[in-house]
Amino acid sequence: MDKEFVKDLTKMDEDFAKWYTDIIIKAELVDYAPIKGFMVIRPYGYEIWENIQAVLDKKFKETGHKNAYFPILIPESLLNKEKEHVKGFAPEVAWVTYGGSEKLSERLCIRPTSETIISTMYSKWIKSYRDLPLLINQWANVVRWEKTTRPFLRTTEFLWQEGHTLHETEEEAKEETIKMLNIYADVFENYLAIPVIKGKKSDKEKFAGAESTYTIEALMHDGKALQSGTSHFFGDGFAKAFDIKYQGRDGKQKNPFQTSWGVSTRSIGGIIMTHGDDRGLKLPPMIAPIQVVIVPFAQHKEGVIEEVNKLGERLKKKFRVELDIRDSYTPGYKCNHWELKGVPVRLEIGPKDIEKNECILFRRDTFEKISVDLKNVEEEIDNLLKDIQTNMYNMALENRKKHTFIAKNIEEYKSIFEKDQGFVKIMWCGNRDCEDKIKEETSSTIRCIPFEEEHIGDKCAICGKEAKHMVYTGRQY
Amino acid sequence: MDKEFVKDLTKMDEDFAKWYTDIIIKAELVDYAPIKGFMVIRPYGYEIWENIQAVLDKKFKETGHKNAYFPILIPESLLNKEKEHVKGFAPEVAWVTYGGSEKLSERLCIRPTSETIISTMYSKWIKSYRDLPLLINQWANVVRWEKTTRPFLRTTEFLWQEGHTLHETEEEAKEETIKMLNIYADVFENYLAIPVIKGKKSDKEKFAGAESTYTIEALMHDGKALQSGTSHFFGDGFAKAFDIKYQGRDGKQKNPFQTSWGVSTRSIGGIIMTHGDDRGLKLPPMIAPIQVVIVPFAQHKEGVIEEVNKLGERLKKKFRVELDIRDSYTPGYKCNHWELKGVPVRLEIGPKDIEKNECILFRRDTFEKISVDLKNVEEEIDNLLKDIQTNMYNMALENRKKHTFIAKNIEEYKSIFEKDQGFVKIMWCGNRDCEDKIKEETSSTIRCIPFEEEHIGDKCAICGKEAKHMVYTGRQY
Repeated sequence: MDKEFVKDLTKMDEDFAKWYTDIIIKAELVDYAPIKGFMVIRPYGYEIWENIQAVLDKKFKETGHKNAYFPILIPESLLNKEKEHVKGFAPEVAWVTYGGSEKLSERLCIRPTSETIISTMYSKWIKSYRDLPLLINQWANVVRWEKTTRPFLRTTEFLWQEGHTLHETEEEAKEETIKMLNIYADVFENYLAIPVIKGKKSDKEKFAGAESTYTIEALMHDGKALQSGTSHFFGDGFAKAFDIKYQGRDGKQKNPFQTSWGVSTRSIGGIIMTHGDDRGLKLPPMIAPIQVVIVPFAQHKEGVIEEVNKLGERLKKKFRVELDIRDSYTPGYKCNHWELKGVPVRLEIGPKDIEKNECILFRRDTFEKISVDLKNVEEEIDNLLKDIQTNMYNMALENRKKHTFIAKNIEEYKSIFEKDQGFVKIMWCGNRDCEDKIKEETSSTIRCIPFEEEHIGDKCAICGKEAKHMVYTGRQY
Repeated sequence: MDKEFVKDLTKMDEDFAKWYTDIIIKAELVDYAPIKGFMVIRPYGYEIWENIQAVLDKKFKETGHKNAYFPILIPESLLNKEKEHVKGFAPEVAWVTYGGSEKLSERLCIRPTSETIISTMYSKWIKSYRDLPLLINQWANVVRWEKTTRPFLRTTEFLWQEGHTLHETEEEAKEETIKMLNIYADVFENYLAIPVIKGKKSDKEKFAGAESTYTIEALMHDGKALQSGTSHFFGDGFAKAFDIKYQGRDGKQKNPFQTSWGVSTRSIGGIIMTHGDDRGLKLPPMIAPIQVVIVPFAQHKEGVIEEVNKLGERLKKKFRVELDIRDSYTPGYKCNHWELKGVPVRLEIGPKDIEKNECILFRRDTFEKISVDLKNVEEEIDNLLKDIQTNMYNMALENRKKHTFIAKNIEEYKSIFEKDQGFVKIMWCGNRDCEDKIKEETSSTIRCIPFEEEHIGDKCAICGKEAKHMVYTGRQY
């Protein structure tokens, strides 16, 4: 049974895409829905999302944001109000044309994002500078009619949060944009154990309708980049298009400055592809639905189940714990099963351990086993979880370092993508032509202009003209 | 300013419907969206929903349920699989016919409820009796193309939770149906302070596709009934229609038994119409976004703001607290404002109170004010909140008693609805004709056959034939 289990899993280095699909299905994170491009998020996958939600929601509220809920359907006329925005989104929305048996007089699209409907409401709510800043977040589902889909990474429907804020001054709105990006980076690094590069998107890659888009970019195990969270500064473009006005401190009517920012269930894909290995999923303790699984050995022997139950009660007070006392599976099968599901710590206990008042702790990240006294088991697990969290971050950082390159010219650049992939740092002139060229030749794109630019040369690696920025490039999910 | 504020509010007894609309808009619970029948749930309304969600979610998890997420779009062919179900829902669904610029080969409806898509997935997931029971809940938005809508009570889109479970035996499924109804009743009575009648729906009123539907029915201030939560037993009807099968303990293939149950944002409408009064909203402390608001008097005087801030810090450790130190409004305006918003306890404090180390506590339910020593203020507020919670329940129960009648025959029945409305208890023969007749003549319906039937006669109040049940009837929202 055990062998079959491992045999079924594609090796990462053989076929990363197939490995990914194997993991998400076998670990019961998702299943394919009977509608092309849609996924079902199963309980184990949804619990990860709930844990991410809880962390983000707390941080949003601590920074003064409140949640609200806006309609899922947006009239075509509203979508059309901001020119850049409609150009970006209209080709990929789902259209509702009938309500019951009645044809609608105006088509309604399922929100691909909510700037247009939210701006419409904001124009009713804002009258004076006293109403600012307006800091609202929405947890919602959105639909984008994607051609190629992959569970979590790119699906027709996904779950996310979208923050939408209004501010008196440009400075304040810009500050908000960066503040929220920093919260995303904090959550990814300290909870999801995923190191990220913070930076600004090029004009080509920015959000439709934004003045500037900021991003956190992560590097997956296979060296591809994942845009993991974005924060947009809109200037007063949407405010003007949607007639959002307020009376300023000087008595004059003004347009406020606007931001929006979002993180989605795509983050779960990031966790899988950053941390997973050939045994399956590997979940960071901070957001793992189960932090400790207890697997008894020789559970039919007298006293074992009782001890396991007792231990379970004790540990549940401090951790998210699962007891696997199913009698239809061998301990070996169970160990494989919970490794596949990525549980950070496995506690093994059998009659001999009980005799010695001990148990075995197995850590999923390094496969190490230690024997610990049951007296101190809470403290030992606590330390272990902290250590796993840190180690997983460090392993991911190590992988990113291994897959981060510098290219001085287009030949160097192309040769990197011929044998490997990853973040490639280059100097860039700021010109769209050079951006298009690397995409054509290597299918890579500029991921971001990082906040912390290094000086790695003076000339654009593509055209040789004077460079404006150092940028991170890479192939993306 | 204060006078204008109160003047704008319609009196409940003059026009209850208009009073309701005034409250929801002025207390900033919702706003009308620019799409007919849709509402925007504003932060203050959404916070109430978050508090209700937290209570329900905890109870679902304590009883072994896990959350998951299923697609919002359902292919027409799936909706058509269960005959009764499609008959009930097809006339009121929104149809997606285009994805981007491409016409879809099959229409997709936005879920009006998720039995069909969830049953489809369950048929893939269930193989053995070991996979049962399957206990899953979903928090989601649904769309029903309603002709007449009112915020919270009946809107085209609403938020809810829908539980969907599978069980080995009929008994177990029926037990689950009642267990979840009891959780709903518990939450309504002990958190929302709304007394409910638990009972079974008549065949005419049951959910499309269910074998039996159970309900909790509440009575609003105006004597109309509100169906507040339902729990359905499906037998194996959906399992057969969707080919959900498992290998039983005896090795044979069987269909499992199924349930579903839901509570929605309609519950917020129930809170408003059960507890509100001519001064506005009145929120039960258990789910109030703000439990205590601190309103300073003479806040420009030295030391007042400092004392209020200090007090706020103290109280925030135990309660959900708001400080209203806006200098652009008078204390009178603020008091009206927070009464309208239904905050259970208002703490007033000015220079004289500070001198005496005292403050005033105002309770929203009875309008009483007491002076308390700042030393014990946490304990005093704690007791007050508990007392308000209980008192609000009792006031609602009192109103229900006042509006509960008994009718022995059709003349008595009609005369009640000529001068009043409420729950009218009657004996019923079980015949659909009699059910139709009371609807025709009084626009009332059978709300439920209560779990606790009283013997109030032997004959059906409508036709005079032998009675089978005592039923609660009423006009409904």
